[in-house]
Amino acid sequence: MSMTHELQATWAASRKSWLESANHPTCDFSLQNLPFGIFSSVSQPEPRVGVALGEMIVDLAALHDAGLLTLSSAAHAGVLRQRVLNGFIALGRETWRSVRIQLSALFARETATLRDAPALRDQVLLRQDQATLHLPLDIPGYTDFYSSKEHATNVGSMFRDPAQALLPNWTEMPIGYNGRASSVVLSGTPVRRPQGQLKLPGSERPVFGPCRKLDFELETAFIIGRGNALGEPVSCAEAEDHIFGMVLLNDWSARDIQQWEYVPLGPFNAKTFATTISPWVVTLDALEPFRVAQPLQSPEPLAYLRHGAAAGVEGAERTEGAPAHAFDIALEARLLPAGAAQPEVISQTNFRYLYWTMAQQLAHHTVSGCNTRVGDLMGSGTISGPTPASSGSLLELSRNGATPLQLAGGTRSFIEDGDAITLAGWCQGAGYRVGFGLCEGEVRPA
Amino acid sequence: MSMTHELQATWAASRKSWLESANHPTCDFSLQNLPFGIFSSVSQPEPRVGVALGEMIVDLAALHDAGLLTLSSAAHAGVLRQRVLNGFIALGRETWRSVRIQLSALFARETATLRDAPALRDQVLLRQDQATLHLPLDIPGYTDFYSSKEHATNVGSMFRDPAQALLPNWTEMPIGYNGRASSVVLSGTPVRRPQGQLKLPGSERPVFGPCRKLDFELETAFIIGRGNALGEPVSCAEAEDHIFGMVLLNDWSARDIQQWEYVPLGPFNAKTFATTISPWVVTLDALEPFRVAQPLQSPEPLAYLRHGAAAGVEGAERTEGAPAHAFDIALEARLLPAGAAQPEVISQTNFRYLYWTMAQQLAHHTVSGCNTRVGDLMGSGTISGPTPASSGSLLELSRNGATPLQLAGGTRSFIEDGDAITLAGWCQGAGYRVGFGLCEGEVRPA
Repeated sequence: MSMTHELQATWAASRKSWLESANHPTCDFSLQNLPFGIFSSVSQPEPRVGVALGEMIVDLAALHDAGLLTLSSAAHAGVLRQRVLNGFIALGRETWRSVRIQLSALFARETATLRDAPALRDQVLLRQDQATLHLPLDIPGYTDFYSSKEHATNVGSMFRDPAQALLPNWTEMPIGYNGRASSVVLSGTPVRRPQGQLKLPGSERPVFGPCRKLDFELETAFIIGRGNALGEPVSCAEAEDHIFGMVLLNDWSARDIQQWEYVPLGPFNAKTFATTISPWVVTLDALEPFRVAQPLQSPEPLAYLRHGAAAGVEGAERTEGAPAHAFDIALEARLLPAGAAQPEVISQTNFRYLYWTMAQQLAHHTVSGCNTRVGDLMGSGTISGPTPASSGSLLELSRNGATPLQLAGGTRSFIEDGDAITLAGWCQGAGYRVGFGLCEGEVRPA
Repeated sequence: MSMTHELQATWAASRKSWLESANHPTCDFSLQNLPFGIFSSVSQPEPRVGVALGEMIVDLAALHDAGLLTLSSAAHAGVLRQRVLNGFIALGRETWRSVRIQLSALFARETATLRDAPALRDQVLLRQDQATLHLPLDIPGYTDFYSSKEHATNVGSMFRDPAQALLPNWTEMPIGYNGRASSVVLSGTPVRRPQGQLKLPGSERPVFGPCRKLDFELETAFIIGRGNALGEPVSCAEAEDHIFGMVLLNDWSARDIQQWEYVPLGPFNAKTFATTISPWVVTLDALEPFRVAQPLQSPEPLAYLRHGAAAGVEGAERTEGAPAHAFDIALEARLLPAGAAQPEVISQTNFRYLYWTMAQQLAHHTVSGCNTRVGDLMGSGTISGPTPASSGSLLELSRNGATPLQLAGGTRSFIEDGDAITLAGWCQGAGYRVGFGLCEGEVRPA
């Protein structure tokens, strides 16, 4: 990615907003963030494009109408009134970047344009707590990876051979599978406990009934900003240019249904009943200052999975000193039992622990020729860290029920009806955050 | 499904058309068929809805403009000019049925309206060989099942334990997985041999390169005509009411990539590079006269998988004497080597061999709460029959290369560059066919 002076200015920790709520050190939506989403309001019920800033939403269509936001063509303004971000995203990286740069300047403390014009401010700003948020994307395809070595090892130890927990293919490729796009829902949507086939120990035949081992999976996901044509793989070097941004993702999982159904074609009913994502898409541009090195990979991946390598070119040089391809994103899972006053943090982990990078995931996804489309959602897989408390699922935290979590609201091996699971994630800057907001879901009875 | 007198009349074998090409005994597109698709022409390049009849395409928008086709509301006519069938399908079964009934009458030999009006005929009919066909659907989701007992047994014998070829879950549920909707292409689209990771015998690490075991899979697929909401399963009894129609499907598979990648999350790169479907969607209404009993299922499936059972109701009565839920559809795969004059038939099988029915597949897909949408594509899985020659893949026909096929154009263990694979399928009536046309693809070098 080429970095302009203006873009770099958007990252300056010293840059504060005249919108004071954006300057709070734990506010997810600082002036450095400016994530995109879809919102509506009582007075204007048509969903449209907004940007989260402090406690407010910036209405981009209204800002454009007021002459305060310039797109490369006035004909593009229609995308700001669409009910999903796909049209806006399809305008391309230069547009996303230009909008963030313009907003960064407009809302900076020293810029008087809106700061000193209360009537104009009221036209373009809406309180988040007065808005309705919507699923921000039409998702043509949803893929879920399995890229945490710790998670794969934990699961392999429990369900297969602890001595050979990691399968031989795992360190050679970012294992992934196609998920069900239709059941991706917005944060806040209640999740009904699924029913399905359960194979109980000692019984010859399965029974049908409500899932008894309902779990969450703490994940992030990236969103395709530029598709690729069928038969034209995206190289690992180019992959980040195809990514618009990231969200939090809870890959709800019915462990008992999964265990019975998944051989040989993978999980199906165990994961197709709901997948929750957070409403605001944080751009890769906003994450740039939080880039860190990914874990060392051993064995060295095949050439097409090396950062800096061209697509599918065997024998390409390994690029020494290449930029880091992970991001330092703190992640938390919280559980709130029905009727409890406070959620309890049950997992603390970090995106940077992932073994395979987003660039490698996308290069692998397309290397056989698979095409991607704007809005495609690519889940990271459960993100577990090196310690038991950094595990990203109850399956791991409770060791499949062997060591239930002790919470103020009771013990938990798996999720009970009425429990709400909340994911949170943020990059910690010097006195500010680039955060994702929350990814929440409450479980209802089957 | 309630059957009207008019609908039953569309099935009469004695009904012939004044369009003589439709009356040929081996013509796929008889007056009894009337499948829907999307076409364009040089003079009218906008893709729109058509119906195949004999060697012609009936232009439904032109027919409506001429006052010869009535929809329940004139406001619905816009769907006839859309570039995919989804809008038309969303109008519902009564509309699909009404259009077929009207066409059946209009093109019947005794109906003079168009028969005796050459100028009008030219407005509403186009020769198929002068039209361009298009992918008929926006496909929000693609699911592939694995419902042939013979296929699952053959594969299990080769890759797992021949003594326990069928896994314990296979006879309990229609095993399926989410496929990649983005790479579903129309018949005639060339297929590029995929590259990927191959684990060669005796080598410690995989290599990257072109697939060496490229295969086809002879499948059919059904298309969702009425979606269901998240959390609201479709019962086995209601499932057929949610199906618009069927197509042929070739689930191209890279066996070597698949074998290395598929544990534990299922096939991914091995199947995401291309999936080919035939252009004309044959409605369930047209298939009705070819309904036959499905194979006996033992053990008896759980209640939610019994035809006639309500969704998810355990303990429901088994419905004795319930209508049959399979269809007698003859299926063929043909291979044409580059430069050869004639394709050779390499497989002859039948849809009726499938162990799990479409109704059971859809009931299972949704039982955990998964929603479906109009246009969703649901593949049957490879359809293999009881004899070696009725196997629906080269993997089975050549026993993974152990017994190569002997063809006039050379031997084949798997597909070679330049080979074209064609699938064909039809229901044989008394002197007429309800056929699917062809599902073709030629393989290009990696």
